[in-house]
Amino acid sequence: MKALIAGGAGFIGSHLADYLLNEGNEVVCIDNFFIGTRQNILHLLTNPHYVFYQYDLNNMELLHQVFNKEKPDYVFHLAANSDIQASAQNPIIEYQNTYSTTFNLLEAMRLHNVKKMFFASTSAVYGNKDALLNEETALLAPISYYGGAKLGSEGLLSAYAYMNDMDVLIFRFPNVIGPRLTHGVIFDFIKRLKKDSSKLLILGDGTQTKPYLYVFDLIEAIMKFKNIGKGVTLYNVGVDTATSVTRIAEIVCQKIGASNVSFEYTGGKGGWKGDVPKFQYDLSKIHTAGWTAKYTSDEAVALTVENNLV
Amino acid sequence: MKALIAGGAGFIGSHLADYLLNEGNEVVCIDNFFIGTRQNILHLLTNPHYVFYQYDLNNMELLHQVFNKEKPDYVFHLAANSDIQASAQNPIIEYQNTYSTTFNLLEAMRLHNVKKMFFASTSAVYGNKDALLNEETALLAPISYYGGAKLGSEGLLSAYAYMNDMDVLIFRFPNVIGPRLTHGVIFDFIKRLKKDSSKLLILGDGTQTKPYLYVFDLIEAIMKFKNIGKGVTLYNVGVDTATSVTRIAEIVCQKIGASNVSFEYTGGKGGWKGDVPKFQYDLSKIHTAGWTAKYTSDEAVALTVENNLV
Repeated sequence: MKALIAGGAGFIGSHLADYLLNEGNEVVCIDNFFIGTRQNILHLLTNPHYVFYQYDLNNMELLHQVFNKEKPDYVFHLAANSDIQASAQNPIIEYQNTYSTTFNLLEAMRLHNVKKMFFASTSAVYGNKDALLNEETALLAPISYYGGAKLGSEGLLSAYAYMNDMDVLIFRFPNVIGPRLTHGVIFDFIKRLKKDSSKLLILGDGTQTKPYLYVFDLIEAIMKFKNIGKGVTLYNVGVDTATSVTRIAEIVCQKIGASNVSFEYTGGKGGWKGDVPKFQYDLSKIHTAGWTAKYTSDEAVALTVENNLV
Repeated sequence: MKALIAGGAGFIGSHLADYLLNEGNEVVCIDNFFIGTRQNILHLLTNPHYVFYQYDLNNMELLHQVFNKEKPDYVFHLAANSDIQASAQNPIIEYQNTYSTTFNLLEAMRLHNVKKMFFASTSAVYGNKDALLNEETALLAPISYYGGAKLGSEGLLSAYAYMNDMDVLIFRFPNVIGPRLTHGVIFDFIKRLKKDSSKLLILGDGTQTKPYLYVFDLIEAIMKFKNIGKGVTLYNVGVDTATSVTRIAEIVCQKIGASNVSFEYTGGKGGWKGDVPKFQYDLSKIHTAGWTAKYTSDEAVALTVENNLV
């Protein structure tokens, strides 16, 4: 298989490239280095089965060039603005980098007759709900521009799949963490503690509790289901456990060896406007299909802190 | 109230302008005449409470000018490509005219501090389902680019409403018919029979069965609920009855006075790729809220044929 990874120099995309190459596939990567980094793919640049293009997916002409030249038969779409806080002040970031990138990739696939796509969606499409989130019956009411643009992308995928007989696999990611992570609460805590290990500023009241999925668990799920079936296949992907922000702070302090750290809370329910303070997936669909995460949410956090300290 | 109607020279938008003016509101209309027509608003152009701009919503600069000058306090967003068949060959029509128009209007509202929006969504967000479609529990799986772009617009509305404390009313329209209708099956049948009343070409097998809502029923629902509440309020709007394509053909023939018309079917389930051949709404939410359509689907069809023959 020749796989095109959009956002392939990012945190998750670069790990996916490793796995796809390891399985014997050809990999074509497109990334504009807005969030992805050359560092993440340095080890791949000399691999004869790997090609990298530093292109922006909003340049349709360059996209056509890549499809013409490389003739991929599977597109893994992981390109998006993944920093919800950044777009909260400037929604056009999501319009361009999250929604329009999906439209452009689907147009390229339609015009170049590419029939398979994996799409990285998100828990943010659900919005703020107390109920267990089921992928087929939960109301979709995003509260961030990021979640809104991802829901819009899912709408496009559904229409393109039907109109062009494409097979599409959609995973709604929870918080995903692990090596090469570029931002988020774990990252912030380590940075702050390295500056000053006597105190730690925590956004919100610390009770925000989310399931954290270790990135290698996620990639194994993508690899397992990537050729699953006809039309659109949609899964929540995650872990049944969850970790509070205060618990993350405790794990980071312990791993760093910082004791007597004074936690200072900004207060309030969410860390920032558009943040969903608590959610839990109904994972019965993906569990029944034969995949379960190896690591609990707390284990994923602990491993990620260790990775970042190496 | 000063209402801005986007797509205000269209079939539904122009009727809404009539009702809003009649209630004593100021009305600002934007339309690019892609689908809307000057004919639809000719009677309004001399009304001192009505202003018309022949602008394209994708021109953000002109949009800012209108918001700056007119300072609307309510946006009724009915601008979209409403012709699903047209965009089936060219999805960028939906990206530009259905999705991006929503993004631009919401951006203008955010930047000019406008807090109320009505949005014309569609049954097409559900896709092709046998079940009774409930607005809160049905899976959303559009099979047309139009439905995909409308679902994307709903995602944007949800996010903007939360992030900017906007109050948003979303109606998922079924097929809406009545005076000033510009396209669709009734329109096509009348045109064909006027050319040749001996035979009538019918797309599909004629069993496609949809609820048709009379436009004045719809406008009355918009007027009733337009100030309904905080955050996002979402309703299916429609009729409990439905009309098959063959039944529409019979009604048209009867009203036109054409007898012995030979019906010729192209065959297949749907009229065209992306068409949903059958659907039925769960209307309990809007009925409980106090609105029910006055006309049945068959009555709406009959009235619409009569309007078109005047």
